[in-house]
Amino acid sequence: MIPDSAFPVEPWQVRETELNLDLLAQSESVFALSNGHLGLRGNLDEGEPHGLPGTYLNSFYEVRPLPYAEAGYSYPEEGQSLIDVTNGKLLRLLVDDEPFDVRYGELLEHERILDLRAGTLARCVTWRSPAGSSVIVRSTRLVSLVHRSVAAIEYIVEAVGDFARITVQSELVTNEDQPRPSSDPRVAAVLSSPLEPVAHEADGDHRALLIHRTRGSGLMMAAAMDHLIDVPGRVEVTTEAGEDLARTTVICGLRPGQQLRIVKFLAYGWSSLRSRPALRDQVAGAIDGARYTGWQGLLDSQREYLDDFWDSADVEVEGDPECQQAVRFGLFHLLQASARAERRAIPGKGPTGTGYDGHAFWDTEGFVLPVLTYTAPHAAADALRWRASTLDLARQRAAELALAGASFPWRTICGQECSAYWPAGTAAWHVNADIAMAFERYRIVTGDVKLEIECGLEVLVETARLWASLGHHDRYGVWHIDGVTGPDEYSAVMRDNVFTNLMAAHNLRIAAQACGRHPEAADKLKVTTEEMAAWRDAAEAVHIPFDEGLHVHEQSEGFTRLREWRFTEDAKYPLLLHYPYVRLYPSQVVKQADLVLAMHWLGHEFTDEQKARNVDYYERRTVRDSSLSAATQAVLCAEVGHLELAHDYTAESALVDLRDLHHNTRDGLHMAALAGAWTALVAGFGGLRDSEGVLSFNPRLPEDITRLRFRLRWRGFRLTVDVDHDSVTYTMRDGPDGRLRLRHADEEFELSTSAPVTKPVVSRTPLLPAPPQPPGREPRRRPG
Amino acid sequence: MIPDSAFPVEPWQVRETELNLDLLAQSESVFALSNGHLGLRGNLDEGEPHGLPGTYLNSFYEVRPLPYAEAGYSYPEEGQSLIDVTNGKLLRLLVDDEPFDVRYGELLEHERILDLRAGTLARCVTWRSPAGSSVIVRSTRLVSLVHRSVAAIEYIVEAVGDFARITVQSELVTNEDQPRPSSDPRVAAVLSSPLEPVAHEADGDHRALLIHRTRGSGLMMAAAMDHLIDVPGRVEVTTEAGEDLARTTVICGLRPGQQLRIVKFLAYGWSSLRSRPALRDQVAGAIDGARYTGWQGLLDSQREYLDDFWDSADVEVEGDPECQQAVRFGLFHLLQASARAERRAIPGKGPTGTGYDGHAFWDTEGFVLPVLTYTAPHAAADALRWRASTLDLARQRAAELALAGASFPWRTICGQECSAYWPAGTAAWHVNADIAMAFERYRIVTGDVKLEIECGLEVLVETARLWASLGHHDRYGVWHIDGVTGPDEYSAVMRDNVFTNLMAAHNLRIAAQACGRHPEAADKLKVTTEEMAAWRDAAEAVHIPFDEGLHVHEQSEGFTRLREWRFTEDAKYPLLLHYPYVRLYPSQVVKQADLVLAMHWLGHEFTDEQKARNVDYYERRTVRDSSLSAATQAVLCAEVGHLELAHDYTAESALVDLRDLHHNTRDGLHMAALAGAWTALVAGFGGLRDSEGVLSFNPRLPEDITRLRFRLRWRGFRLTVDVDHDSVTYTMRDGPDGRLRLRHADEEFELSTSAPVTKPVVSRTPLLPAPPQPPGREPRRRPG
Repeated sequence: MIPDSAFPVEPWQVRETELNLDLLAQSESVFALSNGHLGLRGNLDEGEPHGLPGTYLNSFYEVRPLPYAEAGYSYPEEGQSLIDVTNGKLLRLLVDDEPFDVRYGELLEHERILDLRAGTLARCVTWRSPAGSSVIVRSTRLVSLVHRSVAAIEYIVEAVGDFARITVQSELVTNEDQPRPSSDPRVAAVLSSPLEPVAHEADGDHRALLIHRTRGSGLMMAAAMDHLIDVPGRVEVTTEAGEDLARTTVICGLRPGQQLRIVKFLAYGWSSLRSRPALRDQVAGAIDGARYTGWQGLLDSQREYLDDFWDSADVEVEGDPECQQAVRFGLFHLLQASARAERRAIPGKGPTGTGYDGHAFWDTEGFVLPVLTYTAPHAAADALRWRASTLDLARQRAAELALAGASFPWRTICGQECSAYWPAGTAAWHVNADIAMAFERYRIVTGDVKLEIECGLEVLVETARLWASLGHHDRYGVWHIDGVTGPDEYSAVMRDNVFTNLMAAHNLRIAAQACGRHPEAADKLKVTTEEMAAWRDAAEAVHIPFDEGLHVHEQSEGFTRLREWRFTEDAKYPLLLHYPYVRLYPSQVVKQADLVLAMHWLGHEFTDEQKARNVDYYERRTVRDSSLSAATQAVLCAEVGHLELAHDYTAESALVDLRDLHHNTRDGLHMAALAGAWTALVAGFGGLRDSEGVLSFNPRLPEDITRLRFRLRWRGFRLTVDVDHDSVTYTMRDGPDGRLRLRHADEEFELSTSAPVTKPVVSRTPLLPAPPQPPGREPRRRPG
Repeated sequence: MIPDSAFPVEPWQVRETELNLDLLAQSESVFALSNGHLGLRGNLDEGEPHGLPGTYLNSFYEVRPLPYAEAGYSYPEEGQSLIDVTNGKLLRLLVDDEPFDVRYGELLEHERILDLRAGTLARCVTWRSPAGSSVIVRSTRLVSLVHRSVAAIEYIVEAVGDFARITVQSELVTNEDQPRPSSDPRVAAVLSSPLEPVAHEADGDHRALLIHRTRGSGLMMAAAMDHLIDVPGRVEVTTEAGEDLARTTVICGLRPGQQLRIVKFLAYGWSSLRSRPALRDQVAGAIDGARYTGWQGLLDSQREYLDDFWDSADVEVEGDPECQQAVRFGLFHLLQASARAERRAIPGKGPTGTGYDGHAFWDTEGFVLPVLTYTAPHAAADALRWRASTLDLARQRAAELALAGASFPWRTICGQECSAYWPAGTAAWHVNADIAMAFERYRIVTGDVKLEIECGLEVLVETARLWASLGHHDRYGVWHIDGVTGPDEYSAVMRDNVFTNLMAAHNLRIAAQACGRHPEAADKLKVTTEEMAAWRDAAEAVHIPFDEGLHVHEQSEGFTRLREWRFTEDAKYPLLLHYPYVRLYPSQVVKQADLVLAMHWLGHEFTDEQKARNVDYYERRTVRDSSLSAATQAVLCAEVGHLELAHDYTAESALVDLRDLHHNTRDGLHMAALAGAWTALVAGFGGLRDSEGVLSFNPRLPEDITRLRFRLRWRGFRLTVDVDHDSVTYTMRDGPDGRLRLRHADEEFELSTSAPVTKPVVSRTPLLPAPPQPPGREPRRRPG
């Protein structure tokens, strides 16, 4: 856990006031910079100490064998692992003849600031060497959101008190030593030194380039650096390059108060297709461009890009400064993970660490894209295009599984299924419906139909075909999906999971509707009217198990009849580390929102009473051993009137990484949980819903949040919703024709740019008192 | 497949009339000799060519890591693999200067005979060397059923036509080259050269000994050889020993008609505890004993042992000579696998090959012991003692799984769980009830209560405790077991599997009854009257899912509502090699008898009509991709009146290895299927049942079997049952008090040694016509 004191609560930045080596790995994740293409963990400039050195290129991975002691048909044989590529962040410093290392000498001051509006990571260090020479080091790092291949670092060294001879070694280092990622020696064997050298060049005295390729996956990457050096007096600059190392050495003398300033430009590129010369020239061109733009140019364009983002994405939370900081921190990292991903995956941990091997899951479409669709729709569209680009692989996978249509992977970097445990992988078919829903939401929210024509329709049709071949009608005509795993990973291979069945029905319906919108395109995909009728019929006949005795939905058929889990006061969490699946699966214990998630995403399928009773039932059985859960629980608790509990869950989701609540922030940030901060505030307290194609709000705030103001985009309009405990003001800032129908607490109204509309908050009394959680799994209460 | 012509159909032997190198590996399994402690595959005397070289010591294994691409709590990390130990079968022959090798020169005659009454494998070869020298080689091999550590070979070489210089190298060879057992390189790495040398001795000119140990499992083994040599004229004998090789070389000259006769005595021993000197002396003593007994003495005692076995085990089948041969072949191998196992496991493949890593499964208690209990009860008792000896490990496993009592492993050599796929391993809890039932059957059939006191009671109590902690009562008081895998491995992690639920209830009931029989012992195990009441209550309240619409039992809750499997004419079997579990599990396709097995083992829980309808329903959906299935289908088909179909299944089970019906006889014999030949005949056509504690028969024969006569033991009595199409004659040959109550077709009667009793066969008309099977999985029809 990261203590509350580590990062002071400030609205627009995350500031570390002193260096805590025990939290180094966590801070590297928190301070990661990325643009979705290139990611730099917040490693110290001088490279060490480090928790996990990390420089990532989106989708640049190595393959590794997936071993099975007992193999089975269709088990994936090859995994994909994101690898740490050439590190260009390195700037090693020698003061006189002693290396600058925070573990030696005296660290008089150490501050790092992630600036959420500037898009930079700044560092200021005052250090006295063991021999007594003092220096101030100021560095500012950015990964450009505007120039996709480019990162840059401004590095300033100032002598304090005495003259000092300063040596800076600015490097590109490939195949850095890694902490062992796993106890399995074969994993380490493949991933240690994953890059083999292809070429290296030193050009002039301040510029160098390294080209490497992976052995197994056959990808080639290039990294280049160039330097601007500014110092009074004599300076010697040399550059050399070898297979896994390029180094520019800058030597000068500084009198007290004098500064050495180095601007290091970095450019990265990779390809599975392009030749070595083409890649070399691509990266050389990028670095020329960066140099042309200059440091100030990069800073200015970075801030401009972010200003535009915040203008329609910002969420203001009055009364809870922790959540205020956290929701902006989350939005910033979501943008970083996606802004320039451009038809590459958004991994579960973003480009901030190697957790989950750098794989993308349903987290992308299920949790990240709903936020991006409202705040950075171009990034959502790119992520959907990436998914669509893997359709052929998904078709092959479906065929391998004796199914029609397309079966998208549970976890992957490049589209191939990489899940080695099918009960919580392949059987979690819902990922297909999650993808379909993300396409549909994008269309509804943005009003952009081009994406559907370009690739969305095909995805909808092929996923619908999957469901049609996976489900079946029983002899009474009821449609079932069996042997299925829903979101709750403490249940698997169940029958008729409500979430999955509702999502499948939705997928079938929207596919049929999309074919109706695009009859010619549907015809090209060989969709017949009979096939569409079969989809609609299955969707209408879908079985939704409900326990008439308890008046609650069964998460899956018979769930409420399963054995109750025996929660004890001294229980250890997460349960999966202490209990076997063979006991967890047939018990009424829920890892993460499942039925409750269905009530969020497809809320119109449930009555208010059902929602209240279901929340009450599942809250008591949900242990939140997944970081995906808290935000969804926040949304539903808010809806059924447990506003304080919703506030607790909101904070849990928002603070997942700033407080390391799941104890694995070191491996990378939790993108879905960070997205959940926005979702909990906007969909929870703001009551935003869109599942019926209408933009609806029903805001209500918990006691301590005095005001919530959020901005979003809807079909080209930019809206602001401003909520306090009594009223809601809807403002439309611009838009194509200036008029829009919205819903406020079940009442439709019209909004135009001419004037804001203010509505009273509609209060509701909860049907049931706020439910308890399993012992030891109550969310941390917000300070009252 | 082995063609019908390979082994002529003969009642008391299996004879191979010519050497077919394509069937070499299969014939090595068929011709394996063993006594349950020591097993020798039927490799050629000269060692090669071979399919799989094999010399096994029961439970002598090496450990190997079990890899998981995604590991989970409680997954076993270490597997156990039976290893090929020091090969003492080797007798290499040089004729003049050319090695005798069936692949070179001219093989004029090659016959091998497995004699089921003598307990020997004899071979006769006439061979002409490439240079034209002819010899006749006659060898006879036995593994003594009387002298546990001893094997012996009589090896006779005769010169034909010309003088020949004969050299015989009789060897002990350790760490023989193995065919790669798996594509996983780590498996091969561990299992190649698994034995490290500890000591070697050559003693005099004709005797040697090698001692080795395993690296991981820390087991030590010793193998010794000694020789008697008989030849006219001068002979030179020398013996040398090295780390992995000991060799006795015999050189002589033979004139036409002259013979060199060598008797090679072998002794083996192993221990995890005893010291090197102790093991050396143990083996040296055994070989001294063998030499003292002499070749003829070994032959005589072998035949005597087998005469005694056949006297109360033989099954005579008139009208089907193939089944006649096969049932004796099966009984012979069952005896070989168990006779001197003495508190070691009976592996699924016996000591005949390394298939399934040499592991024991529920096959032992479920399929092998029912036969041994009636035919060789001392061997059944020993096998049960072995299982009881692993109780502490089973208790630890239960605790690891957060369960009470004991959880026996799905697959193991020494008691530790070695199953790396829990849905078809740990979740197949029924193994525990199968073990409990085997103890109960042993008590009922033999009348021996000592074993229950010695260890059976504790096993019954601890397995009952497992079930009590695994199952639960729902809010209506009905008792359920969820997340369970029954015998059918094409379904897994189901709810309320009928077989498992009935077996669990049986286990709970017999545990309570046993505690009632032994109140003091039960008290020591801390069994209270409350605990027994809870067991009885759960057993009474157990849920048995039944489909009221279809009038059939659901194999598991909701089974009859699952999607039907789409059988196609061109389907490939076994399905598990062509379809994923994720599709198989939620479909109505059955790998092997499951509900049907419940109707055999606990037949009194079903009405006649239920049996008929269930057989009809499940026959249409059962693909018999397991060799465990056919015999059970035979028994139930016979019971419901489909006698010809039962006959087909009987032959399928009986011929599993003589015809290599599952295409893997090369890896070892199928002990459970071989046992199934007896079960199909005796329980199927003989109608033997004992589940209610009374010995019952209800014989009816299929058309072609004109007479069935079988012998068995029941509480110290020896019985013969002699059946033809009209009548049954029951004969009691001896017994403790000479009187016994039996049941014939639901009618009780009394039998004594004074006179046989003859009863008419009770014919019944089947309720339904004989059902079809899935396309391509019809059993081979018996020739009409």
